[in-house]
This record gives sequence, structure tokens and C-alpha cells, in this order.
Amino acid sequence: MAKQLNIGLIGYSFMGKAHSNAFRKVSMFFPDTGVEPVMKVICGRNREAVSRAAAQFGWEEYATNWRRVVAREDIDVVDICSPGNMHKPMAIEALKAGKHVICEKPLANNLTEAKEILKVANRSDQKTMVAFNYRRVPAVALARQLIQEGRIGQIYHWRAVYLQDWIIDPDFPLVWRLEKRLAGSGPLGDLGAHIVDLALHLVGDIDTIVGADTTFIKKRPRVESIDASLGAKGGGGKRIGRVTVEDATLFLARFKNGALGSFEATRFAAGRRNHNRFEINGSKGSIAFNLEKMNELQYYSREDEEHVQGFREIIVNEGSHPYMSAWWPPGHLVGWEHTFVHEVKDFFEAVVSNQKASPDFKEGTKVQAVLEAVGQSAKSKRWVKVPRA
Amino acid sequence: MAKQLNIGLIGYSFMGKAHSNAFRKVSMFFPDTGVEPVMKVICGRNREAVSRAAAQFGWEEYATNWRRVVAREDIDVVDICSPGNMHKPMAIEALKAGKHVICEKPLANNLTEAKEILKVANRSDQKTMVAFNYRRVPAVALARQLIQEGRIGQIYHWRAVYLQDWIIDPDFPLVWRLEKRLAGSGPLGDLGAHIVDLALHLVGDIDTIVGADTTFIKKRPRVESIDASLGAKGGGGKRIGRVTVEDATLFLARFKNGALGSFEATRFAAGRRNHNRFEINGSKGSIAFNLEKMNELQYYSREDEEHVQGFREIIVNEGSHPYMSAWWPPGHLVGWEHTFVHEVKDFFEAVVSNQKASPDFKEGTKVQAVLEAVGQSAKSKRWVKVPRA
Amino acid sequence: MAKQLNIGLIGYSFMGKAHSNAFRKVSMFFPDTGVEPVMKVICGRNREAVSRAAAQFGWEEYATNWRRVVAREDIDVVDICSPGNMHKPMAIEALKAGKHVICEKPLANNLTEAKEILKVANRSDQKTMVAFNYRRVPAVALARQLIQEGRIGQIYHWRAVYLQDWIIDPDFPLVWRLEKRLAGSGPLGDLGAHIVDLALHLVGDIDTIVGADTTFIKKRPRVESIDASLGAKGGGGKRIGRVTVEDATLFLARFKNGALGSFEATRFAAGRRNHNRFEINGSKGSIAFNLEKMNELQYYSREDEEHVQGFREIIVNEGSHPYMSAWWPPGHLVGWEHTFVHEVKDFFEAVVSNQKASPDFKEGTKVQAVLEAVGQSAKSKRWVKVPRA
Amino acid sequence: MAKQLNIGLIGYSFMGKAHSNAFRKVSMFFPDTGVEPVMKVICGRNREAVSRAAAQFGWEEYATNWRRVVAREDIDVVDICSPGNMHKPMAIEALKAGKHVICEKPLANNLTEAKEILKVANRSDQKTMVAFNYRRVPAVALARQLIQEGRIGQIYHWRAVYLQDWIIDPDFPLVWRLEKRLAGSGPLGDLGAHIVDLALHLVGDIDTIVGADTTFIKKRPRVESIDASLGAKGGGGKRIGRVTVEDATLFLARFKNGALGSFEATRFAAGRRNHNRFEINGSKGSIAFNLEKMNELQYYSREDEEHVQGFREIIVNEGSHPYMSAWWPPGHLVGWEHTFVHEVKDFFEAVVSNQKASPDFKEGTKVQAVLEAVGQSAKSKRWVKVPRA
Repeated sequence: MAKQLNIGLIGYSFMGKAHSNAFRKVSMFFPDTGVEPVMKVICGRNREAVSRAAAQFGWEEYATNWRRVVAREDIDVVDICSPGNMHKPMAIEALKAGKHVICEKPLANNLTEAKEILKVANRSDQKTMVAFNYRRVPAVALARQLIQEGRIGQIYHWRAVYLQDWIIDPDFPLVWRLEKRLAGSGPLGDLGAHIVDLALHLVGDIDTIVGADTTFIKKRPRVESIDASLGAKGGGGKRIGRVTVEDATLFLARFKNGALGSFEATRFAAGRRNHNRFEINGSKGSIAFNLEKMNELQYYSREDEEHVQGFREIIVNEGSHPYMSAWWPPGHLVGWEHTFVHEVKDFFEAVVSNQKASPDFKEGTKVQAVLEAVGQSAKSKRWVKVPRA
Repeated sequence: MAKQLNIGLIGYSFMGKAHSNAFRKVSMFFPDTGVEPVMKVICGRNREAVSRAAAQFGWEEYATNWRRVVAREDIDVVDICSPGNMHKPMAIEALKAGKHVICEKPLANNLTEAKEILKVANRSDQKTMVAFNYRRVPAVALARQLIQEGRIGQIYHWRAVYLQDWIIDPDFPLVWRLEKRLAGSGPLGDLGAHIVDLALHLVGDIDTIVGADTTFIKKRPRVESIDASLGAKGGGGKRIGRVTVEDATLFLARFKNGALGSFEATRFAAGRRNHNRFEINGSKGSIAFNLEKMNELQYYSREDEEHVQGFREIIVNEGSHPYMSAWWPPGHLVGWEHTFVHEVKDFFEAVVSNQKASPDFKEGTKVQAVLEAVGQSAKSKRWVKVPRA
Repeated sequence: MAKQLNIGLIGYSFMGKAHSNAFRKVSMFFPDTGVEPVMKVICGRNREAVSRAAAQFGWEEYATNWRRVVAREDIDVVDICSPGNMHKPMAIEALKAGKHVICEKPLANNLTEAKEILKVANRSDQKTMVAFNYRRVPAVALARQLIQEGRIGQIYHWRAVYLQDWIIDPDFPLVWRLEKRLAGSGPLGDLGAHIVDLALHLVGDIDTIVGADTTFIKKRPRVESIDASLGAKGGGGKRIGRVTVEDATLFLARFKNGALGSFEATRFAAGRRNHNRFEINGSKGSIAFNLEKMNELQYYSREDEEHVQGFREIIVNEGSHPYMSAWWPPGHLVGWEHTFVHEVKDFFEAVVSNQKASPDFKEGTKVQAVLEAVGQSAKSKRWVKVPRA
Repeated sequence: MAKQLNIGLIGYSFMGKAHSNAFRKVSMFFPDTGVEPVMKVICGRNREAVSRAAAQFGWEEYATNWRRVVAREDIDVVDICSPGNMHKPMAIEALKAGKHVICEKPLANNLTEAKEILKVANRSDQKTMVAFNYRRVPAVALARQLIQEGRIGQIYHWRAVYLQDWIIDPDFPLVWRLEKRLAGSGPLGDLGAHIVDLALHLVGDIDTIVGADTTFIKKRPRVESIDASLGAKGGGGKRIGRVTVEDATLFLARFKNGALGSFEATRFAAGRRNHNRFEINGSKGSIAFNLEKMNELQYYSREDEEHVQGFREIIVNEGSHPYMSAWWPPGHLVGWEHTFVHEVKDFFEAVVSNQKASPDFKEGTKVQAVLEAVGQSAKSKRWVKVPRA
């Protein structure tokens, strides 16, 4: 008999919607996790908006005070989908209240905060997970499987870019993601965190880092609603504000196993809407992936006979591929939102089996340590050792 | 205030699951259709299986007698996901009972049946729809929009293949889709129907047809469970049965507007899992689509400056693209199952606005007329005029 | 010691240039054929143009009377690059004069002519070759090798298109290729001949055929220079002339081995400049090729482990690939013109070793027989048996 | 009347063959450069090999002493295709002898050598060119044209990799390219030089650099013939030698115009044979190129209407594209060797018109300055300013 888990979700916009959809679908497609989620309460500051979201997404209740939500006795799982500056207080209170906690990435806005969260998590028996959903793309899970099967051999190269283009227009406004005090950083934490997590997951730990960043458009029109919601004074009626995060960041890395890595995260790559692409080259083969073609994995094997060697385009929609037996017949594609269903499914299985979920807050803190080193290097203009998480 | 519509679904396997998912999701992503579907009852012959499906997919009740379901007063919409040989009785009884009817494709196992259904539908005020879901792939809807915007000009060529490979292995058993009395035909009705519908939708009516088909593997191992469920006697303990449908069918067409078309449907194209690909060439440009890359549309314009002409790979994930503003930001892919959500959404809007749904049973009968002509031509080895629907 | 062969080439425009380049390059890249070609004489009607071509392409002499060229004692090989209506007299006279003969494709403008040529060739000991150069694309030669290695198994499907778009504009003039008396046919002989040759080469003989063709643009502006060179009277000062060949042709085929085939040749596929694409599906795997990506071959094997199955993109630039050890290191692409170098190299080897060249005039006549059947079927609107060659 | 230029070529292996082919073909395809090259003499140390090359490639004479060749009165152009350690003496003597000089890339094995060559070149009136042939890929020339037309706008990002895999096997021997005293560096000078040249050509000057390199396989089997030809003593009969160049190098760059760049050159990317790929993102559009698909250019314009935006795959084979009117009709691909024909053609035009060739030795020295900075940074582990060339 499936165990009921009551969910409390904080946040109702982009990520809140994606997580809601996952809770709603997981039991239909993965009926054997052992968990039956109950969509108990969704929480947000704007009463009207959150009440509408509750109705639309299928939550039993809505709330506007997150502290009360995480304190509720009947809540088993707290899922944090708020901006990064709120992760620390929410995660810590939820953990202290004895909840399992899922937290959107990155775990925090800096390493110090992440470590504070981790300290509390380490004292808890509850399960934690950072929502690095791209690990749960079936093609990425297959990539991991191929590596573990030894098909790539010793890894020499990791090469990843996460390219978007939504703020190229200089008139695009100063949204919260462009304000350091709210977002912590620009594409580094938003996009770079994803490819750092994938690198740690697929290649291993990073030893040293050197990076560079820049802000191409330094001033942008203010968004009054944001200023208002923040009680912002700095704006003082000014219509133009300063961008306080980077627009693009690049870094090189030496992994502990000797591999060399390159990373780039930008919001200024015209035509690249969500271009999270990586390539791994090893002694026995290579792998390449692009989120804009997320149902495909490119795989090259040096062990194929010479005259038929070539990158294979594997359409990762077979029953033999990770997660896919739950969905549709071969060749029937899945989409971006499916990664969250997989995430929730894996999290539930961790809860039921009392195993560590992955990536947990420890792994999330390791990502944060790499981001920290990148930020330091961008300032010091030197190679920097990744601090311990 | 949204109007509640009670749904009765017949069938609980592949298509039943896909339609269930659509009813479950539609209001979350398209909250403004004016309809709130109630997943009232799911129906199937196998009590245990259908009861499990009801629980898993979220239906209030299950039933095993379809005649009772379509007769229920509280049911507003009947959705038929059974094998083709049952479409006629189910659709006719549902229409006579005053229900709106959605029917999986093809509408019937032959033109005579389809016309009988249509005759009843023509006397009804209720909405009908044949579930040609590929019209609702955003990229296909965009293709239609580009044609209507005049970007392709006069259409000269239609070229479509629907390739699969799931029965290449000679030991693959004699499932119901390989039995003519159940499935009506092989890939012609299963796959060919889809590309014929797309051709009629995107190019226009077909005038004449010439075709050919073949059965590569003529005998296969029987499936005992199917024989049992059919009370089959012919098998008489024999372990090997005769394949009574074609394995592949090809046909050429002349459209009424002068365009030339080619069509191919097969289950013997190794490596092509769900390769529904079409290309349209016109006086001003071209379009190409492949279901295995369903988030992309290829578009070529002769009006681009000469030195920058080329096929554009449009990632059809923008708010400006059909259906997509309801989902996620640009570059966040949708999957195969989304087409059914779009279908249901469009059907609901037709019901609420009292407009014809599309493709309705009239259009479904036109597809059937083309399939009929293909069958005739394969026998007569001549060009055949498509009969009136 | 290499044997010198004196070459006489008839024609100096597109094909004449391509063949000249091949004779010029062959010994540099294939020094071991046993033949050293001597570019003796190039022949054309327009003295000024052919003399310029002789100088530019590196021929020792030029001539304007083809009969004298083919009769010259010192000429060993006659290479015919004239329009199709001249192939018969030129080939027959060259054969009668004891020359080895290379002839551009198709061998003749109809089957009767081809058979007349073949009758003479059959009485000769000299080598003949029809210049179906696409057999000599390394990727196509590799495709053939994979088939011969048994990697594709029994062939079920052949699917080929040859798409161009150079006459879409209705103002494009009535060049010789649009006049039946000169060109014999439209894309059928020009493009269709290529894909028919590839089908016979890769799949086997064709048994029956059904086809359709059409002319989208029926009248076009005349080209005065062509009219003049032909002494055309029909034009009589008129500026608009009738297109007497088809603009597009499609046909279906049943091969003798049971495979089904589809073919399409058109000059009205906007954006497709030279899109000669074919796909072969067999019981063990598939192959796909596109001339616009001529250094690549797509190959799928059902024998790969299930979770790593996918089409491989083989870059056919390895020393282990046909013809390629003569050129550059891996990944250094070859171009269209290289196919002619390979053709000449293979022809020379046939001469030296006194082996049949391939495709010889017998094979060229078989292609013609298929084209003949297509033409008949387009008229009779029925399936037609391919006549014996 | 075309001016005859007598060519003396030093080197007869890979590059010697490619340059020979270019001199042989240029007048046939570009008859209007104003130059008629005479393939006078080819020079190499191994008498037997160079004499065979002379015959095979079409040179009038061969020689074994390069000093005599560059001193010959009748030689107008010296073309240097020797290993990098010989570039300096050869280029300087050729310049002093009043010759035009083409030199393979990189110009020298280090910046000091390059500057010494440049000093002599600056005192000469003769034309110089470094053979960065990838500027002459038609698709790359088109990329440059699009930038100059303003289609990309302000450039934000340059991202280039040059990936090969020919030494992944640890048993691959210690060829000259793996010995620092002969090759100067590993992939940095061999592959990195190409992408640095393209970056300077397409984006502009680089201000600062940070880099990293590594040697994955530190010892390899010796090649006796190389040791012998060098009179190497250090080997002393040992069968295993130390690799003295890097196996891979990565670097980040800040361009003077504010753009950020990343570069990677490696010989350890399994499956990437000659994968020279770059992408440029600007305020108005993007461009992407891959040498393994060298006939294609990807181009994205932000100025396309929103619902039809997408990367265009331009097949760069039109008469309207750079260099292409000289070759074949649209869709007839060119290959790698064509870039050298274009190079020679452009060089001849520079000679005839007495204009600077490009890239000349000044530009070649600028590339060298960047490589120098990369090497310094790899050692100092800091950002380094690119020295003045």
C-alpha cells in the first residue's frame, strides 16, 4: 500500500508550476514508488495569484505565510521554489521542523549560506534534494550509464555551454534575476550551476578553476512592480537601474582525475534559447548532449569497426532507456517537464527506502563551492582551488 | 464559470492512457477553455485491468460494458479508444444517445463503416472529432499557419513517410494489429491514415491515387491471449498464424490543386521508430517536419536574400507559436503526449462555442475514402479516383 | 611503366569541365592505375569557346568536328559529354572506330537508341562506361560495401528522391534541358536516371513500375541563342515557347527480390539544390545518404546493443573507406568533382586489366529500360513491366 | 596576358601535396588572376621521395638543397611547407633573395622567431602570406561577409574548438609533431593557430588570455626513422621516448572590443577527426561553422519575424557565395583541398595588383603573439596580456 506524503510547495510561478505538474503526474506514470503524494498546500506572497494557482494546479489549499506552512504538522515534504535569497531561511526552518526538503537550484546564493543549510541538514534524518532536474533527462541518465559501463573509458575532456538569449535586447527590463541581492549571480548560478552539477555527476570532482565574466549591458529599465514588492528605495523614481549581476561567465577547470573542462554560461547567445550542451571525450569513446534536442544522445565508440565508426544518434525513447518504460512506445518523445516527474519519483523512492536522495544538499553544496571559486577567480584573475564543501 | 463536462472513455491501454493524461492536464495548462472536464468513467472488457487503470489514471469509476456507458445520462462526452472494428457501433450508439464523440483514428475499418457513422453524425447536433493528434503538434500547426500566411505559395509537392520498425523480427507475434478482421488494415490505417489526414489538412483534397502494398513476413507465432479473447477457432491449437494485413504500403497521389504527392507507411524500416516525416515544396518556399524531432520545423523561403537562403531550423517553443504560450519558456521542449492535451482543448472550445471541431467525422470519412482508394488500387494495379466521402 | 592513353573529349561545358578536371588529377592521386592519360583533344561546335576551354582545361588540341575526332588513329578513349540526342551517333562511331568509350548519362534519349548503341558495343572488345558518377561517391561505395558485407540483410525498402529547384521561377528560360527533342525528358533522364542506377547497383533489378509526371509551368521565355544554334523554325520570332518535358516525375517500383521502391525527381523543390537522397531498409539495418552531405553516410545496425542503437553518422573520410586512402587525412572532406576522378581511375583499371568497367553500356541500357517503363506508365496510368535491356 | 610566376615549393608530404594540387588547378578554375604559375621545382631532403613527388604532382624539377632553391634567379615565389623549426631560415633567406613567400602556419615555432622573420619581411617589397587556409573556406568567407554587412551586430561571444583524435591510442608513436624542438608545440600551434587566426580575422584583436594545457600520455614508442633523420642521439637505442608537447590546450580570451572568447585545441577528442567548429554571437544574430561540414554555414538573425526565427543551414555552394562562381552549380560540394586553390588565387591577385596579401607575415606574427601568451599563461597560471606583434 502506497504511503501518503503531504506536500507543501513554496512558489507558484515558473518552477512552482513545473513542480506542481510533477506531483500531479508521478503516480499515473510511476505507480510503484510506494508513495502517493497529496498536494496539500501551495504558498506565495500574493494572495490572489497563489489562490488562482492553487485552483489551476490542483492544490487543496493555498497560503501566504511560508513559516506557517513549513511548521504545519501535516506536511511531510517541503518543496522550495522561491528566489535564491530565500532558500536558506526556508530550508533551515523546514529541516528543523522535521520535513523532507526539495530545494530549487542553486541551493543558495553563496557558499556560506549553502554550508549553513548543510550543517542543519547533516543533523537531520530527513531526505534532501537539490532540484538539478537535468540529471533526470533520460538521455543524460543514459550518458551516466554508458560512463559507468566503461564505454567512454578514462575521461579526458568535459566541454559544456549553457546558452540563452532572453536579455539581449537592451530594453529588456531589470527583472529580479538581474539583481544580485535577489539572484546572487547572473547566469553563473542560474545556468552555470546546472552544468557544474552535470560535470560533478558525470566526470567527478573539480580541483582548480579559472574564470572570467562580464556585463555587456550595464543599465536597464526598472520594473516598478519588483521595486514595489521589495520596498526598494534605491530606485527613487528613477526609471533606469544598474545591472548588478554578470551577463556571461566562462571558466576552465582541472578535474581531480586529470580531465580538463570548459564551461560557459551566457544570456547573450542570439538564437540559443535553452542550449545546454555538453560533450565528454574519453579514451574509448565520446558522448554529446544538447537540451534543445533532449530526446537524443550522441555516442561514439572507438570499439566499433573502423569503417563504420561514427557518432550514433540514439533516440532515448526505448523501454531499455532510463525512466522510459513508464511512458510511451519507442519514438514517442518526452518533454522538459518530464524531468521533474523523474525527480519526484526518485525522491519518493529515496524516502521510502530510506536511502540518500541525489543530488542531496551535500552535493548541492559542492556545486556551490565551484561557483564560489569561479566568482573568486573572476575577481582575482588567477586560478583558484575549489574550497571544500 | 467553466462548464463541467463528464467524460466516458472506452479503452485503457496505449491510447486510453494518452487520452486520460490529456483530460487530467488540460485545465492546468489551458484554464480558459470554458470547460472543466470530469473524468467520470473508464470502460474496458477486463475488469481487473480497467479497475487498475481507473485508479492509476484518476477516473472516478470504471465499467466493463460500453453500451451502458454510452447510454448513461450523466455522460456528456464519449471518447472511443478501442480497436477499429468497434468504432462503428460505439460511435453510432454514442451519437444516438446525444453525446459529443471523440474517436481514435482511423474513424473506421473501411469507408462503408465510416459513412454509416457519418450519416448518424450528420443528424446530430453534437460535436465530433477524429483524434488525428499530429495536427496538434505545435510545429505542424505552425506549418499550417505558414501556408495560410502565403509563405509557401502554390504547393507543388507533398512527400510523406511514416516509418516504424517494431515487427521486423519474424518472431514478433501475431498481435491484433496484424489481423485484418480487427485492425482493418496494417500500416495503411494505422500510420497512413495520419499522413493522409495531414495531407488533406495542409495541401487539400486528393483526386486520384495509385498504390502498392506487400507483406514481407507472411506467418508469425500466434498470441494465445488474443485468440482466447476472440474465441478464435481458426487457430485450432496451431502455433503459427497467417498475417492478414500488409506490412508496408506506398502510394502516389494527384491533388485537386495540381500538386503531386507521395506516401509511404511501413513497419519494416529498421531504426525508424516513429518517423512521421513530411515535406512540402511550393512556389515560394518549403517546409519539412519529422515527428522524431517534433519540436522543430524546417522552413525555407525563396524570399530571403540569395546569399543567406537556407532551411531554418525553427525550434517551435516560443510564445508566438501555436499552443506554446500555455507551456514553458522558449527552448523548453514539449513531448508527444502534449498533442492530446491540445486536441482536448480544441475540442472543448468547439463545444463551448458551438463551432465545428476539426477534424470532425466528415473529415475523418474523407481520410477513409483515400485509404479505400489505396486499397482498391493495390488490388486493381491502376490509378483510382478517390470516392466521395 | 604506365601505359599512355590518348583522350578525346566531346563537350566543354559543365560535364566537359568536370571530366577534364578528372583526367588532369587522376595520376596525381591515383598514380598506380597503370595508365597515364594524355589530354589530346577536346571537341565542340563553337570554335572560340572550345579553343578557350582547351587552353583553360589543359588539352593539347581542340576540334569542332566530332566525327574526325572519333576517327583519329591516335585517340584511344572517346569521352562523350554532349547533350543526349548526340550520344547514339557519337558512341556508335567511336565504338566502330575501335575506341574505348565513356558516355555521360543517361546513355541515350530512349531505350531504342540505347539498344542500338549496345548492339554495337557488344560486338566490340573495347571498354565502355556510362558516367553515373554517384556510384563513386565514397559514401555510396561504402553503402555498397556494407550491403555486400551482409550488414543490411534482406532489403525491404528503397526510397530515393532527387530534388532540385533551378526552374521554379516561371521566367526561367526554355533552355535545352526543357526541350524534349534535345534532352529526351526532363528530370526523369537527368536526375531520375541517377537514382535508378543507384537502385539497380545497390538493391537489384526492378520488375514492375508505376509512375506519374507533370509539368507545372507549361510556357517559358525562349532563349534566342539556342533557337539559333538549332536552326529552329518553330519559334518563328515568338518569345514564348512550350515546355515539352516534364517538371517532375514520381514512380513506385517492385524489385525482383521483393523489395518495394519509391523514386521522385523534380526541379520544383524550393531550397533543395542537389538533394539526391536515398534510404535503404533491410532486415538487419538501414543506410541513408544525401548528396548535399556527401561526405557522410548514415548507418543503423539492429545488431548493436539495444540501449545504444541509433543511426551512426559516418564521416566517410578514412583511409579504410573506398577511394579515400588516395586523398587526405581523416576529416578532410572531398567534393563533388572527386567522383569523376574515381570514375576515370576505375575505368583505367578496367582497361589495363581487361575487365568489364561498371556501369558499362549494358548496365546503362538497363537504366534506360526502367526510364522507358516509367514513361509508358505515366501515359497508360498502369503498372508496367520493365522491358528487357 | 597572364604573367608567368615560377614557383619553388619546399616540402612534399601532406602540405606539399595540397599546395601542389592548388598550383595545378588554380588557372583552370580561376583563369583571370593575371598569373600563370609554372611549377618549377619541388624540394625535399630525401632524393628518392622528392623525385617521385615531382613526377606525381607535376613539377618540372626536384631539388634536395633548399638554400639553392630559394637563391635561384628564375624562382619568383617560394612556398614553405616544411616543419615549423625550418620556417625562420627559409623565410628569411627567401625574402632576402627577393622572392614572394608563402609559408605554412604557424609562421614560426615561437614569437621571437616570427618577429625576426617579420623584420626582414618589413624591409621587402615582396608579398607574404601565411597559409591559414580556413579563411578561404567559402562558408568562412561568407561568415566574414555577414559580419561586415552588419548582420551580426556587436559581437559578444567567440567560441571555438579544434578537435582531433589521432593520437588517443597510447601506442601511437612519437612522430615529429610530438617533439617540441621540431614542432614548437602540440595542438596549440597546429590547431590552435588556426582558430586564433579565425578569431582575429572575424572578431578582432585579443587583449588578454588565460590558459591551461596538459599531456595525457607522457611516453610513447619512438620512431626510428625520425631519430635517424635527425641524427638524434638522445634516444640511444631506447624504444620509448618522452612527449615534449602538450596533448590539449584550452584558453579564455578578452577581445579588445569587449567580446569574450573561448578556445580549445586537442588531439584527444574521440570521434572528432577534424572538428574545427566556431560560433559567434552578436547583438543582431549568430553564426556557426564546423569544418567537418564545411559546405554549410549556420546563420541566425534576430531580425527575422519572431515565429520564423531559427538557425538557417546555408549550403555555401551558390554563385553568389565567395569563390563559388568558379566551381560548379549550386549544391555541388567542394572539399578541403579547394581552400588552397583559393589561397593561391588570392595570393596571385595580391601580387598582380601589388596589394597586401592576407594574412601576411604581420598578421601571422599577431597569431604567434597570442600563442605565446597562451604558453606563458599555462605556466604562470595567470591572465596574460597578449604582447605586441
